[in-house]
Formats: sequence, C-alpha cells, structure tokens
Amino acid sequence: CVVSSCFRASEEEQQAQSKKALKKQQKEAEKAAKKAEKQAKLVSVRQETQTLPMDFAMDRYGICPMVQSQQKLDRALVRVQDLTPEKAEQQIWVRARIHTSRAKGKQCFLVLRHQQFTVQALLAVGDRASKQMVKFAANLTKESIIDVEAVVKKVEQKIESCSQQDVELHVERIFVISQSEARLPLQLEDAVRPEGEGDEEGRATVNQDTRLDNRVIDLRTTTSQAIFRLQSGVCQLFRDTLINKGFVEIQTPKIISAASEGGANVFTVSYFKTSAYLAQSPQLYKQMCICADFDKVFCVGPVFRAEDSNTHRHLTEFVGLDIEMAFNYHYHEVIDSITDTMVQIFKGLRDRFQTEIQTVNKQYPSEPFKFLEPTLRLEYKEAVAMLRAAGVEMGDEEDLSTPNEKLLGRLVKEKYDTDFFVLDKYPLAVRPFYTMPDPNNAKYSNSYDMFMRGEEILSGAQRVHDAQLLTERAMHHGIDLEKIKAYIDSFRYGAPPHAGGGIGLERVTMLYLGLHNVRQTSMFPRDPKRLTP
Amino acid sequence: CVVSSCFRASEEEQQAQSKKALKKQQKEAEKAAKKAEKQAKLVSVRQETQTLPMDFAMDRYGICPMVQSQQKLDRALVRVQDLTPEKAEQQIWVRARIHTSRAKGKQCFLVLRHQQFTVQALLAVGDRASKQMVKFAANLTKESIIDVEAVVKKVEQKIESCSQQDVELHVERIFVISQSEARLPLQLEDAVRPEGEGDEEGRATVNQDTRLDNRVIDLRTTTSQAIFRLQSGVCQLFRDTLINKGFVEIQTPKIISAASEGGANVFTVSYFKTSAYLAQSPQLYKQMCICADFDKVFCVGPVFRAEDSNTHRHLTEFVGLDIEMAFNYHYHEVIDSITDTMVQIFKGLRDRFQTEIQTVNKQYPSEPFKFLEPTLRLEYKEAVAMLRAAGVEMGDEEDLSTPNEKLLGRLVKEKYDTDFFVLDKYPLAVRPFYTMPDPNNAKYSNSYDMFMRGEEILSGAQRVHDAQLLTERAMHHGIDLEKIKAYIDSFRYGAPPHAGGGIGLERVTMLYLGLHNVRQTSMFPRDPKRLTP
Repeated sequence: CVVSSCFRASEEEQQAQSKKALKKQQKEAEKAAKKAEKQAKLVSVRQETQTLPMDFAMDRYGICPMVQSQQKLDRALVRVQDLTPEKAEQQIWVRARIHTSRAKGKQCFLVLRHQQFTVQALLAVGDRASKQMVKFAANLTKESIIDVEAVVKKVEQKIESCSQQDVELHVERIFVISQSEARLPLQLEDAVRPEGEGDEEGRATVNQDTRLDNRVIDLRTTTSQAIFRLQSGVCQLFRDTLINKGFVEIQTPKIISAASEGGANVFTVSYFKTSAYLAQSPQLYKQMCICADFDKVFCVGPVFRAEDSNTHRHLTEFVGLDIEMAFNYHYHEVIDSITDTMVQIFKGLRDRFQTEIQTVNKQYPSEPFKFLEPTLRLEYKEAVAMLRAAGVEMGDEEDLSTPNEKLLGRLVKEKYDTDFFVLDKYPLAVRPFYTMPDPNNAKYSNSYDMFMRGEEILSGAQRVHDAQLLTERAMHHGIDLEKIKAYIDSFRYGAPPHAGGGIGLERVTMLYLGLHNVRQTSMFPRDPKRLTP
Repeated sequence: CVVSSCFRASEEEQQAQSKKALKKQQKEAEKAAKKAEKQAKLVSVRQETQTLPMDFAMDRYGICPMVQSQQKLDRALVRVQDLTPEKAEQQIWVRARIHTSRAKGKQCFLVLRHQQFTVQALLAVGDRASKQMVKFAANLTKESIIDVEAVVKKVEQKIESCSQQDVELHVERIFVISQSEARLPLQLEDAVRPEGEGDEEGRATVNQDTRLDNRVIDLRTTTSQAIFRLQSGVCQLFRDTLINKGFVEIQTPKIISAASEGGANVFTVSYFKTSAYLAQSPQLYKQMCICADFDKVFCVGPVFRAEDSNTHRHLTEFVGLDIEMAFNYHYHEVIDSITDTMVQIFKGLRDRFQTEIQTVNKQYPSEPFKFLEPTLRLEYKEAVAMLRAAGVEMGDEEDLSTPNEKLLGRLVKEKYDTDFFVLDKYPLAVRPFYTMPDPNNAKYSNSYDMFMRGEEILSGAQRVHDAQLLTERAMHHGIDLEKIKAYIDSFRYGAPPHAGGGIGLERVTMLYLGLHNVRQTSMFPRDPKRLTP
C-alpha cells in the first residue's frame, strides 16, 4: 500500500477504468513507489486517527492527509445536483459538505450539501460498515468536506428536506477532506429562515452584521448562492447584449489626478509624493473614447463614492455597468439601446435563472418583475402631474425625493403594469453641467433616469459635445475652468454627439429580486461603517 | 423650410422611404411646424456661415447647428467599412472624419475616416457642386466630423492609400457636424509611422508622452483602434471560456482594511475618519468565495501596486484577470483549466482579430504568436538546467531575474517552438507564505508562472487551505498573525483544496501583439510619473 486508503482507487473503480487509464496508473504507481517511505509516515498518521484498532472496515473511513497534490487520481466525482434516479444502483464518489448529521440506533443519516443542492446519505452497521465507522460518521462536524463512495438508491417516498428528493446514497466509504471546527459562527438553517417565521417557535434568524462578519459561511446558504449566481448572469447578459450591438469593452483608470465632479464625496489616495483621487465614475474616460472614435463603449468596474450615507441603497464602493454611445441625430437612439439591453437582461434572468429566483423567493418572497416592450418612457412633466394628482406638492423644476420616486413607481405600476420605465427630460437645473439642454425649452434637458420597482438604477444624459457650450455651462455652474480644462479640451478636435449612462449592478440585482438592502447583493459590501471582511 | 438644410431629407431619400416612414415623417413635420419660429433663427445663423450669397448649391453644404437632438431623422448612415463595390451607383449618407483634404483645380479630394477605415471622396465643380461648395470642402479642418451625401462609384485603379480600395464617393452634399480646431497636437500619419521609417526623409514620429498627453487623438489611429478592439476581445474570450467551464463571475472590493500581502507597495486611502488601502490583488476574496462553495470563480478588475518602478512592463494600476478554482486531487487540474483558457484566447484572437493583428503589425512588425496543444509545462529544475547549459550561473532556489526569464523564453522557443509555456514547481523560498509546499520535496512548492514571449503574464499556486499549516507558514515568514487573522479564519470551517492565479491584461495584449511597452496596451496608463489624462 503506497497511499493512504482514502486516495486509493476502489475495486469497482479499477474495473471501470480503461486499459489506457490503467497504463497511466501503472506509470504513476512506479513513480509512487519511490515515495513509499514518505507515504508510510502519512499512513501511520492516518492510522492514529482511527478510533479503534482491529476494525474490519478500517480502510473504509478516516481522515485524509491534507490534499497536497500528492498524486493524480483517476476518480470521477459526481456532483450532488446530478444525483437523479437515472443513476440508481450506480456506485459513485461524491464530494460534499456535511449539512446535517443524525444518528439513530445502528444508522446514521447525513444530509450532504454542495452549493444549492442537498442529498440524503445513509450509513448502516452491516457488511459494508462497522459500528466504529457509523460512529465515526455520526461524530463528524457540520460543514466538514468529505468524499463518500456510495450506491445511489431510489427512494419510495420523496425526501422533502433535500433538493434531490428521489434518491439517497448508501455510503460504503467515507473520508474527511477538510474538517470544520465544531462551533460555527452562524447556523445555515437560521440564515435562510424567512424573516418572522421563526418568531413563534423561538427560532433564530441571523442579523445582517453577523452575516457580513462571517461572510464565508453566509455565502454558503442557498439564498446567497442563488443571489450571486444570478448577479454573475446580470454581468454576462449586459456584456453579451452590448457586444452583439457592436460595443467595445474599455478599461478606465480608477486613480485619477483631479476630482471630475467638483471634488465632493471623493476619496483621496496617497500617490507617491502627491495625492490622487478614486474615480466617482468612468464618465470622462467613456467620453474620451467616444471622442477617440470608439463609437459605442461599455465598462464594468468599481465606482467609489465617499458619501457618509447609511441607507439601504448606498455603498461607498459599488460596481458600475457603464455605457456611452455616439448617436446620429437624437439621444433617444441611445435610450433605446440601453432599454433594450435592460430588457435582454430581464428576459435572460427570467429564462435562465428561474431556479435561483425561486430559491431567493423562498426566503424573501416578492412579485415577479414586470416589464414592457418597448419600454415605457415618460417625461418628467408627466411624472410631476401624476404625483400632483396623487396629492404631492412640488415645483416644476424640483428634483424627485426618494419617497416621491417610490410613490411614482407605484403609480406607474398601477397605471401601466410595469416595474421598469424611463423618466426623460429632467429639469436642467437638477442635472450636472455637462448635460445637454433641451433645444426647445431651456428649463429642461436631454437627460433621463431609469427605475426598477420605484428606485433609480441608472442616470444618464446626452452630454454637451461642444467645447464652447461646455465652457458656458461650467461657468454657469460656478465650476473652476482650470480644473476641467483637460475634459473640455477633449471636445476641441471634432466630437460626435453622444449620450450614455451608468447602472448600479447591486441595485439591479436587489430590485430585480425584490430584495430590500443592497448589502444582500454585494458580496463584501463597503459603507461608512464597514470595511471588512 | 422648417429645419436647416443639413437635417433635411434629400429627394432621393424621400423616394426611398416607405409609406409608413412617410406617415411618421408627416406627424413629425406637424410637430416641427410648431417649432418654425425657433428654427428660423437657426437657419439665419446657418446662412451667415455660408461664404457667398447667391450660390445655386447653397443648401448643399454648410455647418450644421450643434446636434442637440432637435429632431429624429429617418436617415440611414452607411459605415465607411461597408463601402464596397456592391454599393456602386447607390446614393448614400456617410458620417466620417476628414482624414486628409487636397484641392486640385476645380476638384477637391478628401479622405474620409471612420475608426480603422478610410475612403476617398471627390467634389468637383459642376451640376451638383458650385465653386463655393468645393472651396468650402477644401477649407474644412482635418479631424472635423461631417455628413456627406454621395454616390458610390467603382474605381478602375485601386486606391492604395485607403482601406476601401475599390470605390470612391462622389459627394453631392456636405455638412459639418463637429468642427475640429485647425491645429492638432499631433498628426495621425506621424503617429502610425513605423519607428525609424521616417528618419531618412526627415519625417516625424510621435513620442510616447506626446501620445499619452493627447490620448483622445492618439487613440484614433488605426494602430490604437486595433489594439483596444483586440483587448476587448481578450476579456470576452477569457470570460466566455470560463463561463463555459462553469465558472461564476465575482466582484471583489478594492478598498480594504488591511494590506493583505505585508503592507509594502500598497496605496493608502483616506476613509472617513480612518485609513484604508487599495487591494493589490483580489486573492483573499477569491479564496473566500472558494471557501463559500462557489468552486470556480473569476473576476476582471483593477489591481493597484504602489511600486516606484518605471519599466516597460510595470503599471501602478492594471487590469487583473483572476481565476480561483477548487480541485479534486491535484493542482494540475487547475493549471490545465488555465492553460486551456489561454489557448482559447490565443485561438480566438487568431481567428477573429486577424485584421487588427495585421493593422498593428504594419506599425510594429512581429512574428505570429505560437503556442502548443497541450501547453508545454516545464519544471523549474529543468529551466535552471537549460539556463545553466546556456552559461547562466544560478542557485537551485534562486528566483529568475527578468533577463533570465527572457533568455529562458528564447531557449524554450528554440527547443519547443512555442511562445507560451508554464513553469511549474517554483522554489518554496521565493513564493508567498500561502503557497502550498511540494509534498515530496520541501525545497519546492505547488506553484507556477506562465510566460508569453519570455515575459511573465501569470503567477499562481495551490494555496494552503489548512488553517494550521497556514499559521505555521505565516510564522515562518515572520508575518504578524493578528493582521491576517480574518484570512486564516476563513479556512476553519471546511475548505476545499484550491489553486488559482492572476493574469495581467495589458501584458497579455502587449505580448500577444509583440509590442514592447505596456503603456501601448493601457488606454490611460498609470505609473509613478503619470496620473493624467
């Protein structure tokens, strides 16, 4: 015996191996022979971990030495999610975590978990397992990672507590790959319990800070797994749609020499013997790419805002999905591209991430996300009229407050049955200096926000692409022209008309899923009070 | 006349429009009528810009008012790259920049450019153009953006100076969309001249700082357009390959509370009332995701290094393509995934970006990039032996210097005919504390670098996934355990064996194309001396 039994191929595996694989194995065995002396030491270490000597099943269980890439093993591991009745009676290996463990007389029931999927596994004292082996299994700590060899068995009654309801595993070998400490900082079953549900029975839920402080455990829950798989899908759908439309992906610097938007809410960085800032948006760089003839560009990257606001929807660092696009004659060409991109994202999520949506809904119930094709576009004036009709008092050129945005979302949902719409033609006074004024009414501008479930997810506009008008607008806003000289100069050598916008990834994920805090959709959120983990 | 003539549909366009489009246009015309008064003002402004009164062609040229989204125009613009003999005799509109302009008697020859593509355009005094109109065209500044209506004509002799060699445009209308200032900070023809070529004839080339200071112009060259389109392709191929392999994209924070790798070379950020750092790599977060059961993750994002080194291959901010992956029994499973990803990138670039590769080669000639399948994997020992055979004196556990890496690249190319290979099993002493030691030889480790044309593009390793061994290794390296407590704790609750690595995007692009400075493949590079634009 050259290796410890946990890494040794079982009889069944050996029979299944092809000649080619055997040859390869022989070659490796020769090499391995040379390592015999070293390995002997490992084996003895392992044997010490066996609880009782003289156990007939003693090479069928135990704690493996740390996987240090000692050898290449031709052993296929079946994923938990692939354990279906089609595999019945097959002898297979599975790697999974111990989700729960329950001893009952001469038996031990385990629930094994991998990602969002769970399966029941059974050890019973008999030909294939000794008393000691069952005891060993029953004593394993939750969250430990194990390899089991088992026969897949169909079950007569569905196992409601597992994702794989039609089969269970009859375990014949069980080896620990990585042990968990016994005391977990939070319990996964508490972490997925719907709010309020445990209250009567005195069961715990897990508060947000405990979750975030122990994110490695919290991210293992079915809900977290689903949220972040879906978020990965948002990025992929965003990029694939834009690449299909002829966009080019760009990379923009995050360390910048001057605070582009006035200098408020910007983080300062020590940069060798000088100071620099963290970019609050890639906008200047997107626009430079337009002036450099890339025509349609996007970027996905971190955006930094030094705002000391502790709300459910603000982070100091978030992921921006940014778009900038030259157009021919009207900025609505750009709005149409962006709304179509959002619609492709919504459709892709609906069609390809239904499992994830359902999983999140179990813990956080919400209505399915509704959208129209083409996307509803309202003018700011109309929104003000709707709000006034609902009793809100506000001026024509006044910005929307967060509660009014929420109310508008509800009014739009009632009237148009959509959770997504564009609000176009914002008052010029409430937008940044680089926003193109409306050609027909000096009070308004060629700018827009987009909303999901009544919360803003994108802000955008046609930009002023004329150096002279840009200078006038900056002066009107009292901006120091020296500080934005490079920005203005970008437009001096021929600039196409263009528009764009920036989308907050975490907000899109949150609002699509009907969640209520952006920290649920940021893996490692940053806010004024949280810098860890 | 309700709009200025540049935005008015021509007779030919009107005939081509469908009934539906006409209806729409009528509706718009009604709306537009209301704007008549306002527009009249614009028209008068435009008329002032005409050089001579009583010109029969006066509504066929001029300077448009700034495109402020005054109206939606049903005018299709044909891209320069789509101007081929199939379009001969068609009357079309094109938007492009004036690349060059040359008057010759009663004619004016323009070269129009859009992105990497150019076409010749001709104006001649006659029925369709007046003397004034030709003069107007001849006086337009280079880099101005114009709309022209023209008939596509096949040419008998290929136009060697343009990308569209088989056709030219006979211009009938010409309107300026955005004027460039007359004096450009650099000339595009100088910026694409191969190094050394202009020397004898006294022609200029453009030095790197001038390029970078005027990046908006420099990015317009065919070479820059090609480089950054190809780089967009690298990102896309990287992600598509990994998503096909079942990887999940993650987003990791860039602002961190502690400097993960010791604290040297890290930028400090003011964070409200405290200090924070910019992440030197997403490694801790990738590993946390592995401990949180995501199994296979990747991320694309900025990486910050406060190294005061001004070499051809160092930036203080670059884009990391990062991979981390749980494996079953041997870290070569991960190496195989990464090398296959690189091979998919190389193949994708070769098959889908040949135009871009050829374009860059015109200015910067290089040999086509060669790679093997499967990828060549050498052990560090072998590399040391090869270098010694070539006369290099070095110790077994000594790290490779940059010149020795370069030399090794040449030796490997000679012997194996590949520009890409993996160097495996680095000496443990030259790698970070979290690197898994080789199970068979304590001097070595389960770590690897990958090289393109003799320069490192990826560094990676199997990581120590056992809290106890990690503690020992950190102590051995003299690292303050308190500072990495959160990192070590991540492995206490069951951690799968895993390995990964980080790839530098700019280096991959540079080395694939055979370029010699990473600033050529970073749109807005950051180094100790450059923070702008």
